[in-house]
Amino acid sequence: MPSPKSVAVVGATGAVGSEMIRCLETRAFPVKELHLLASAASAGKTARFKDRELTMKALDGFDFAGVDVALLAVEADVAKDTAERAARAGALVIDNSSAFRMDPAVPLVVPEVNGALLDARPSIVANPNCVAAIMTVALAPLAALARITRVTASTYQAASGAGLPAMRELEESTRAYLEGRPFEPRVLPHPYAFNFFSHNTPIDPATGYNGEETKVMKEVRRIMDRADLRISATCIRVPVLRAHGVAMSVEFDTAVTPETARAALAAAPGLRLVDDAGANRFPMPIDASGADDVLVGRIRTDLSDPDGKTLALFVCGDQLLKGAALNAVQIAERLAS
Amino acid sequence: MPSPKSVAVVGATGAVGSEMIRCLETRAFPVKELHLLASAASAGKTARFKDRELTMKALDGFDFAGVDVALLAVEADVAKDTAERAARAGALVIDNSSAFRMDPAVPLVVPEVNGALLDARPSIVANPNCVAAIMTVALAPLAALARITRVTASTYQAASGAGLPAMRELEESTRAYLEGRPFEPRVLPHPYAFNFFSHNTPIDPATGYNGEETKVMKEVRRIMDRADLRISATCIRVPVLRAHGVAMSVEFDTAVTPETARAALAAAPGLRLVDDAGANRFPMPIDASGADDVLVGRIRTDLSDPDGKTLALFVCGDQLLKGAALNAVQIAERLAS
Repeated sequence: MPSPKSVAVVGATGAVGSEMIRCLETRAFPVKELHLLASAASAGKTARFKDRELTMKALDGFDFAGVDVALLAVEADVAKDTAERAARAGALVIDNSSAFRMDPAVPLVVPEVNGALLDARPSIVANPNCVAAIMTVALAPLAALARITRVTASTYQAASGAGLPAMRELEESTRAYLEGRPFEPRVLPHPYAFNFFSHNTPIDPATGYNGEETKVMKEVRRIMDRADLRISATCIRVPVLRAHGVAMSVEFDTAVTPETARAALAAAPGLRLVDDAGANRFPMPIDASGADDVLVGRIRTDLSDPDGKTLALFVCGDQLLKGAALNAVQIAERLAS
Repeated sequence: MPSPKSVAVVGATGAVGSEMIRCLETRAFPVKELHLLASAASAGKTARFKDRELTMKALDGFDFAGVDVALLAVEADVAKDTAERAARAGALVIDNSSAFRMDPAVPLVVPEVNGALLDARPSIVANPNCVAAIMTVALAPLAALARITRVTASTYQAASGAGLPAMRELEESTRAYLEGRPFEPRVLPHPYAFNFFSHNTPIDPATGYNGEETKVMKEVRRIMDRADLRISATCIRVPVLRAHGVAMSVEFDTAVTPETARAALAAAPGLRLVDDAGANRFPMPIDASGADDVLVGRIRTDLSDPDGKTLALFVCGDQLLKGAALNAVQIAERLAS
């Protein structure tokens, strides 16, 4: 049992920050002291941790001295400064933003996939993009069967990726739609009620891919330690609250049967097989939401590859848990042990 | 101007049947007389056509003598008998069910793609699966640029594919969710509010593909007249009402640039280019719903193919219009001219 730690959650009012607090509690992380940090505007708000009501403090001016583990769930620009400040003060920093994800000095970690990188005791660890985390949990056991040569992914992404305000906007705009009232989107650029749209990150004019897709492609390569991996992604926001789905085609350098893949996925950590063809039950958000495991199913030979070297599968994972807070706390567990 | 026709709409109370009536009106199809046919239980109900209120008659016992064009929007088993009965009576039959789609004696037609098949004046014409129709409108102009060697598709399918009761269930279950009331699904096998799920057609144990995916693959091959086309599909129902999206990767036997593809798609019939990277505006259901054209965008080189021979794109089309009723009426227009 590791010694109890002083922990700080930065961005404690957000969708991911709140889940970090909950994960620390439900996973019985050895917390000696918990600092909840937020913007000056949110300082003074409270949040529950175990049987205590904790008051949020302002991040500005907070002294990280004595903090063992800092979990960051803030925008990249704030994260950059805060991570360096906390690390200088001696804290182990796990940052959920994109600030450090492509920094060669900072490991980008999904514990089930490349958790061994944590053995080097890095002072800052990057927590991946939600889609990249959910995809790689399923790709890693497949990569152990044969060399993966190509991945294509189409995503079905939840509102939570754009934070609590987007989740509220989805609910409020849907309520307005059903009541025949007009609704002007404030958080997302397009109406969200009974609608889906291409992920609203800027398009790279050189490639035509949006920021989310580019993150997914780069981060999957980095987490898999496969700079050469051929990968493409299409990222679409669908009107669900907090679980992402991904339809994937995975090509190998040799034929892999669905049965072999299914057995490997069923035995892998962080995954739950939901592949019941008889009952027509496969991974879906209502089952993935609130679940630690990423659900995986629809495992079949991709019929567009006559050589049988490509598998199709579908994964669904809680965007706020394995896609963010849970993965960060799992990293903290390994670093703190 | 063709001579006015006696037209029958079979299944006139359904989602597709209602849209057929509307399409006949909005497209000014030359209707001399309109018979609205439905189950015995629905006989006596009325529907509006132009300025008239028409009363539905029971399909059972209806005499098709004198009917020039019969538009069928009923289940495959009813369609099979009805189509043959109507054709024997001399009507041109356009059937929206799957009953004749793989029948070599019956053409499967999307007018923009293989409308020339109608020149042979077939007595029965099959109207395709909604996804196949929406996909092929975009694939046809691409096939004119270079030989397509492979297609992979992930769908984002609307409730309307399962009819009006599914559309109502999506709305009612969502309302219940927002009001914190329980809701038991009756039409679809899984909760639909803020959820998505693998298409609920039975899984073929030999392939692992569901009935919808199998239809899409077979029908795209047939409409494109490309029995050899390598194709795979993953069909997912998302909580939107009446427009389907499809993320496609299209591989050619030679490199095709996004610019060339974009120009070809912009000039093609039945398509509207919605590909505004600057404004982050691409095809989505709120724009596709109620529109005759299939929207196409996100046209870019698929980065998983280093040879530049694969394009990624996204289409979205009204499931009830180009996916069903509109395509049927367009076929009728060509047959009746």
